[in-house]
Amino acid sequence: MSEKSNRVAADTHSLFWARSIAIVGASNNASKLGHTITRNIIDGGFQGRIYPINPSGGQIVGLDSYPDLASVPGDIDLVVFCVPGHMIVPMLEQAAQKNAAGVIVISGGFREVGNTALEKDLVETARRYNLRVIGPNCQGILFAPNKLCATWPLIQTPGSMAIISQSGTVAATLAGWAEKEGFGVSGVVSLGNQADLCETDFIEHFCNDEQTKVIALYIEGVKDGRRFMAAVRSSPKPVVILKSGRTPGGEKAAASHTKSLAGRDDVFTGICRQVGALRADTVEELYDFAKAFTAPRLPEGNQMMILTSSGGSGILAIDVAERRGMSVASLLPATAERLRESAIPSAAVISNPLDLTGSALSEDYRVAFEQIEKDQPADAYLLIFGDPIAGSAEKIGRFFQESSKPLAICYLGGGEVEEQELKLFHQMKIPVYPTPERAAAVLAALHQKHQYERIRTEVEP
Amino acid sequence: MSEKSNRVAADTHSLFWARSIAIVGASNNASKLGHTITRNIIDGGFQGRIYPINPSGGQIVGLDSYPDLASVPGDIDLVVFCVPGHMIVPMLEQAAQKNAAGVIVISGGFREVGNTALEKDLVETARRYNLRVIGPNCQGILFAPNKLCATWPLIQTPGSMAIISQSGTVAATLAGWAEKEGFGVSGVVSLGNQADLCETDFIEHFCNDEQTKVIALYIEGVKDGRRFMAAVRSSPKPVVILKSGRTPGGEKAAASHTKSLAGRDDVFTGICRQVGALRADTVEELYDFAKAFTAPRLPEGNQMMILTSSGGSGILAIDVAERRGMSVASLLPATAERLRESAIPSAAVISNPLDLTGSALSEDYRVAFEQIEKDQPADAYLLIFGDPIAGSAEKIGRFFQESSKPLAICYLGGGEVEEQELKLFHQMKIPVYPTPERAAAVLAALHQKHQYERIRTEVEP
Repeated sequence: MSEKSNRVAADTHSLFWARSIAIVGASNNASKLGHTITRNIIDGGFQGRIYPINPSGGQIVGLDSYPDLASVPGDIDLVVFCVPGHMIVPMLEQAAQKNAAGVIVISGGFREVGNTALEKDLVETARRYNLRVIGPNCQGILFAPNKLCATWPLIQTPGSMAIISQSGTVAATLAGWAEKEGFGVSGVVSLGNQADLCETDFIEHFCNDEQTKVIALYIEGVKDGRRFMAAVRSSPKPVVILKSGRTPGGEKAAASHTKSLAGRDDVFTGICRQVGALRADTVEELYDFAKAFTAPRLPEGNQMMILTSSGGSGILAIDVAERRGMSVASLLPATAERLRESAIPSAAVISNPLDLTGSALSEDYRVAFEQIEKDQPADAYLLIFGDPIAGSAEKIGRFFQESSKPLAICYLGGGEVEEQELKLFHQMKIPVYPTPERAAAVLAALHQKHQYERIRTEVEP
Repeated sequence: MSEKSNRVAADTHSLFWARSIAIVGASNNASKLGHTITRNIIDGGFQGRIYPINPSGGQIVGLDSYPDLASVPGDIDLVVFCVPGHMIVPMLEQAAQKNAAGVIVISGGFREVGNTALEKDLVETARRYNLRVIGPNCQGILFAPNKLCATWPLIQTPGSMAIISQSGTVAATLAGWAEKEGFGVSGVVSLGNQADLCETDFIEHFCNDEQTKVIALYIEGVKDGRRFMAAVRSSPKPVVILKSGRTPGGEKAAASHTKSLAGRDDVFTGICRQVGALRADTVEELYDFAKAFTAPRLPEGNQMMILTSSGGSGILAIDVAERRGMSVASLLPATAERLRESAIPSAAVISNPLDLTGSALSEDYRVAFEQIEKDQPADAYLLIFGDPIAGSAEKIGRFFQESSKPLAICYLGGGEVEEQELKLFHQMKIPVYPTPERAAAVLAALHQKHQYERIRTEVEP
């Protein structure tokens, strides 16, 4: 089978929707990855059959174990390998006999330590048996629609953000933040060495997954630029990319880490622009942008209105927004007049940012928002809660659902109330950010995406 | 008394070390600031006398209340006002009769809403009675050495970071992070309108406070540039400054918020360089830098060595470090050879970053660090824990104490273990950052500070 036809046939669907899983190297020893993965598959709520494989026998994490794949009764859709790399190739035949669609190789000891021969052997043997390979040297996958957590840490909150990462740690970090903030993920893929399946295969997979609304990508290089560009360009879901190896030292380290050719950074920036992908500058920005793009409303223009209870935070937001191409227009005299007559606090500073001051209630934000929408509608709104304003999520969540305007929320300085409100907002899929600067950057990114979309529509009518 | 002699006499010591406090506007109504402040003074563990003042009488937050200041038996060192602004001036005489050193005016309704006459009256009356004023329109103060929390939120972890802020929210945000991360603060001052005491008075105060090791400053403008520059230049403690109003829109908003003249941003950058103050770009950076400067070890050169368990995170760190003037030198063949022979994992990628891989234990970091220090010492070290590596704080804390090298820690992707280790590191005053980019930026800031110090030594021998 040629590499090309293989690609077309990439049946990632069967892997992610596996109904039966075997973990080779499953263990009762909590320090072993074979233990962690088995436990997370169970605790993640996987509804299919789980077969721990270990020649020692007995029960493993409460389940009957099997000495080898051949002993398992019935089919195995997916095999996860957590045993030393050199032990895996001989087991692939058994996996194929159990009708496996593919394997996840957590184990290292391949190309990343210079053992290209072993990696070649792995891939060629897998191809012979029609098995797809994730990894090797990876941190596994998570797929929320199938309640499949064959990775770590354990993630239990379903969401709509898919994470694809050349670094297991970056994947775990993003997923961990999403779990902690109640935002959740739809899927996580740790790419590892990408001996067979690569970032583009998974972009295509998540494009076809209903639950996924945005794809967040951490890469150090791209395996097949042409195919990658086509996949991102035709993606119906926004793709946000963090690509490292941008400085000379970073490029050298990327080559050493995953043998990636980082390539010229400005060239990659140009590619992103061409295919309409948002480029993030840091791990936090990748997360921030991905959160906003799970339910994106794109600002058609760059006019931004800030409602805040903290004057200082409003200024910090402007500093970032203006540098990133947004504009903070002054209020028209008539708008200001009507706001002055409205029910907002008398101490409010009637301007843009509209400083509702520390005594603001969530109702004041609603009143101000509606008045501004009527008199002088902005393209995007930034709402800053600089104090513990209880009930903000419920009230603002509702008027946001009714409006069609892009909105970013910043909640800071609010202690326990802040943590509660943040989770409530996130349950409503309204993203909340910890600083005014990060929230402002997100609105600018949404606007940038709108510009990409406009260009796309003009070029491809 | 001339304004100048007033300044010299600024007796902030008596304010911060107050032994008796009255809260005018104390209340049992939990939605009132007079309630929050009274409760926080009590819960903060203040050891002096606390007098809630309210004409309604009875017990307030469990303490006997008094109808007015005159009814309080004995002296009152500090009065906190939480009643409408126009009620305050007539009460200053009573405060003076009780020998108060000064007052904190939480209340708004002064210059920030255009009532300059009332603010002038407040200051002139206070001067007449020799009372110093913090505020008005501020969020109070916290001073850990006196267990005095006359602000919100309640902060109970003592630390060595002093926060001075023209935004109450920014102050609360920084203090809240420090509390949550177990890092703590030595003091917090919300400046408000600075009708009397200004940022420079408090810089001078914290310079004289033993517990304070670093001063973090959020400002929108400076009241008296010459005096400010002299105070920062002569400060024995590092000063980190976030100044907003950097873009045209931001400058305009700053003028509207606190009537600050933001001034040209590049001029302020030049001033910071002249007086050796570090300038932060965002609220998070202000916090990050301040954390590092509580126990600073300044890198003499820009050679940085990265030890990591996550290859990708190492590359992300380099991208930031190199852009900020740090250099990630290659390992010499002899160093690499000795590392290869050492007890670190055989799969380690022997390079800079030194990728100890996901199987790394905390002992591996120690072994690698000691070997590198022996063979090819770096100016600064970045240790990235990209996995839940238990015991890292205890082990690395110890060898850090024994070494003299600047160190930044990044802990990410480690779930619960991460949260535990972070608090342990922070108890040892070793700062931990949530992303490789932020940790790398901190090392670059420490190096920049070293360059400032060198210039200072050369210019002022």
